[in-house]
Amino acid sequence: MSVKNTLLLILLLFIPVSLAAHFLEWGDLIVFITAGLAILPLAAWMGTATEEIAVVVGPTLGGLLNATFGNATELIIALVALNAGLVDVVKASITGSIIGNLLLVMGFSMLLGGLRYKEQKFQSVVARVNASSMNLAVIAILLPTAVNYTSTGISEKILQNLSLAVALVLILVYTLTLLFSMKTHAYLYDVGVAEIEAEDTHHTKPNIWLWSGVLLVCTLLVAVESEMLVSSLEVATSQLGLTSLFTGVILVPIVGNAAEHATAITVAMKNKMDLSLSVAVGSSLQIALFVAPVLVIAGWVLDKPMDLDFNPFELVAVVVSVFIANSISSDGESNWLEGILLLAAYTVLGFAFYFHPVIDNIG
Amino acid sequence: MSVKNTLLLILLLFIPVSLAAHFLEWGDLIVFITAGLAILPLAAWMGTATEEIAVVVGPTLGGLLNATFGNATELIIALVALNAGLVDVVKASITGSIIGNLLLVMGFSMLLGGLRYKEQKFQSVVARVNASSMNLAVIAILLPTAVNYTSTGISEKILQNLSLAVALVLILVYTLTLLFSMKTHAYLYDVGVAEIEAEDTHHTKPNIWLWSGVLLVCTLLVAVESEMLVSSLEVATSQLGLTSLFTGVILVPIVGNAAEHATAITVAMKNKMDLSLSVAVGSSLQIALFVAPVLVIAGWVLDKPMDLDFNPFELVAVVVSVFIANSISSDGESNWLEGILLLAAYTVLGFAFYFHPVIDNIG
Amino acid sequence: MSVKNTLLLILLLFIPVSLAAHFLEWGDLIVFITAGLAILPLAAWMGTATEEIAVVVGPTLGGLLNATFGNATELIIALVALNAGLVDVVKASITGSIIGNLLLVMGFSMLLGGLRYKEQKFQSVVARVNASSMNLAVIAILLPTAVNYTSTGISEKILQNLSLAVALVLILVYTLTLLFSMKTHAYLYDVGVAEIEAEDTHHTKPNIWLWSGVLLVCTLLVAVESEMLVSSLEVATSQLGLTSLFTGVILVPIVGNAAEHATAITVAMKNKMDLSLSVAVGSSLQIALFVAPVLVIAGWVLDKPMDLDFNPFELVAVVVSVFIANSISSDGESNWLEGILLLAAYTVLGFAFYFHPVIDNIG
Repeated sequence: MSVKNTLLLILLLFIPVSLAAHFLEWGDLIVFITAGLAILPLAAWMGTATEEIAVVVGPTLGGLLNATFGNATELIIALVALNAGLVDVVKASITGSIIGNLLLVMGFSMLLGGLRYKEQKFQSVVARVNASSMNLAVIAILLPTAVNYTSTGISEKILQNLSLAVALVLILVYTLTLLFSMKTHAYLYDVGVAEIEAEDTHHTKPNIWLWSGVLLVCTLLVAVESEMLVSSLEVATSQLGLTSLFTGVILVPIVGNAAEHATAITVAMKNKMDLSLSVAVGSSLQIALFVAPVLVIAGWVLDKPMDLDFNPFELVAVVVSVFIANSISSDGESNWLEGILLLAAYTVLGFAFYFHPVIDNIG
Repeated sequence: MSVKNTLLLILLLFIPVSLAAHFLEWGDLIVFITAGLAILPLAAWMGTATEEIAVVVGPTLGGLLNATFGNATELIIALVALNAGLVDVVKASITGSIIGNLLLVMGFSMLLGGLRYKEQKFQSVVARVNASSMNLAVIAILLPTAVNYTSTGISEKILQNLSLAVALVLILVYTLTLLFSMKTHAYLYDVGVAEIEAEDTHHTKPNIWLWSGVLLVCTLLVAVESEMLVSSLEVATSQLGLTSLFTGVILVPIVGNAAEHATAITVAMKNKMDLSLSVAVGSSLQIALFVAPVLVIAGWVLDKPMDLDFNPFELVAVVVSVFIANSISSDGESNWLEGILLLAAYTVLGFAFYFHPVIDNIG
Repeated sequence: MSVKNTLLLILLLFIPVSLAAHFLEWGDLIVFITAGLAILPLAAWMGTATEEIAVVVGPTLGGLLNATFGNATELIIALVALNAGLVDVVKASITGSIIGNLLLVMGFSMLLGGLRYKEQKFQSVVARVNASSMNLAVIAILLPTAVNYTSTGISEKILQNLSLAVALVLILVYTLTLLFSMKTHAYLYDVGVAEIEAEDTHHTKPNIWLWSGVLLVCTLLVAVESEMLVSSLEVATSQLGLTSLFTGVILVPIVGNAAEHATAITVAMKNKMDLSLSVAVGSSLQIALFVAPVLVIAGWVLDKPMDLDFNPFELVAVVVSVFIANSISSDGESNWLEGILLLAAYTVLGFAFYFHPVIDNIG
């Protein structure tokens, strides 16, 4: 058994521990930490299960499955938090996931890949289409914030309507992106698929019933653990002296994106930078084009009004992240220093969020 | 006779209709709509006349003619509106023209071209020089807004002076751009000219007197119709429940730029993307480097003070448009999805302008 | 003797003149101007001395020497001004140096080079790494301003701490940049070094003791002259009707960067654009990654609290400069029009700073 699998099995122990912590009332901080750790192996197996099922059901249905379940962990945590009324944390976790994927994941990939290989190349049409889609998605998501920031006395109702309109446009764009990548321009994506398949080690056809069961159980457990994570979040983070902004932007996305982090870095160290970047950018893209709009619509359905009016500094941070990621990846080459630059950008943004005197209005 | 010409002749009927609507007082809304439709064929023939005369008088004088009359319709509408004191509409129509050319025209060109051809290429030094000039022009035009937004208690007089200074720099840059494209680096532009000439179908030398007459008559009629469009604008748009910001940014530019829209999309569908983009970007560039500064100076001369202090959200929208247009066109290739991305950006900006609670101070 | 050396010797006469102006009390304006002129030849010789010593001590130690003393003049002026409590001028001179190098120096290089050569090429990996580092540095430096601008009631203490944290990250990045350019990826920089050496005309090994003496004397004299420049600055500039912002952003950097200006333009006119740009961008980079953080730490040590909270319009100006410089240099080619665009951007920013009604709180 690989080191990775052993580690995942050990982390699995945190499921009973977190349950014990919750029911025996060991304190919110312990519940928060153990539930966070328990989610990690579940997220990893949900990813594996999704990919295995995708192999069986074929490229089209499999692609749709990946497109919907790819960020399932984040979506579940966010829905639970939304239902608990933690709108600010949910919004912050959207921007935090985008920032984390573009700076932290891409940064570690370029740094650790760059320590092994002097120069790493990646340059496909896919990367450029992804970057353009990302730019559009980020602009659309941040537009309500910009409208609010540049006007006075805008009503909450208007922001709500504008956010819903933006969400519908984004979901339409997401659908068209899938049409592009799976139908009209599928040939552009063939290399990536081949590389992903080469990554897989199975020689026999996966058992679809087994993996569907794994997916179901993991999804249920993630929901359970998310409930405990979210219910303990407010007390735990205030005990640590952290604002809801910092928690949402920095802490939650690290838990939700751990699987992508591991994959992107592993393949970067095998000099497959194209794949590594497509995991990092693709994950950001899915959050911006699918997860965020779904949350806006879910908020509207659940009557927990969630608009896309972010803290203005979140706007600055996302714009900055997209800009620096564009600047570093646009030449199709990377080295360790570029990884350092991305990580440095993440670090200074982290400091800024830590020191940002946000007016805390969760709860 | 081509479909296009038949359509233009039919639209010509709106000239008498709009006059009747005006003098028989059929209501401002009908005047507004019919005058808007009547301008379309006039703008198209002004364009044709300018190009025909340019063929006769030779490349240098012809280039200057195109450079001055290329956006004549927009300039006339804007001057009439400025004289009527609708400064906010005039300013909004400048940003709206830039946004419309970069997102709507370029978006439809890439989408409709991309539905016919899987990948379309365009990559000339001209495109890059245009993009850089565009970036400079946009920065310069938006600078007074940024100065106003980042300071408190700046006097109107100072904004006026700064806007005039910026206008003079832009007109100087425009002159130097003409020197570059017509003298020192004219060879870079030869391909474009050859393509435009190949588009033309005339085998005989155009009659300069005929076309000058057409140009003169059309110019006069556009002025007349612009007067009616502008005088009915306030009542008509408030009947439709629209703000002056939305009218200026979205409605006016669609009327003023219809000719460029048609040309850019037609040539894109013939797989001449270089020409298509140079029409779209070239038109934006002329507005930013020539029309906008001329309006500032005209406002100063007419004593209808017009500065370059835009609504901050117009600044955001222009920056966003330039950024996304740069991002999509910088790789020298396009496909239908990129067209969709540009149109999606235009749509969300349109929503944002629609919902923007601008304090209406026209009139 | 070359024209340049003759000119430098003549400028040397301003050392006694400025001393006379100071002690005989000829007025602050005369002291300010003569001290400014006296610094020019001293800065030039400090540069020469640093390079000569670098040749003797070998590439590694020489590189470190260049990295530390490359912007010694600016650092000395800034430290003297900081000690005199002119924090606003010091901060403005940091942004001004970045803007000046990217727009003024690069603009003149492309314009004057472009008047001789129709198209000039430059395209090395180094240029791209420099651009990415520059983007990161600019983002980091401007982050505290963005935090302050997007929040209300942030304490001076927090801005101070955030600025210190950013400064430490930047110095770490600077160290790693040196490691990259001198150790792990030194081969990328070999061409540049060869070109610089080809520029040098000495056939004999330089006398290290002589040049160390020159460096020492010049450094001392620059300090002396900086004291006079700084002490006369407030009265002199208010006599000229200038704000501290304009003085810091436009005037001080022209004095501090004159040597880089001369070098970059001279080599551009010899069609060595790679070298020219690396001087301009390299100098900006050193200011952002080394000079600015050192000043923050020095302010902390000297108990003259200096944070990185700039005037918001300085943020706009730096972002704009980086954006337009990226846009123009990213294609690896330049012509005279691109030089004009950079200079036009500098001119409109200069107007904006001139008209900016900054609340003057020096002194």
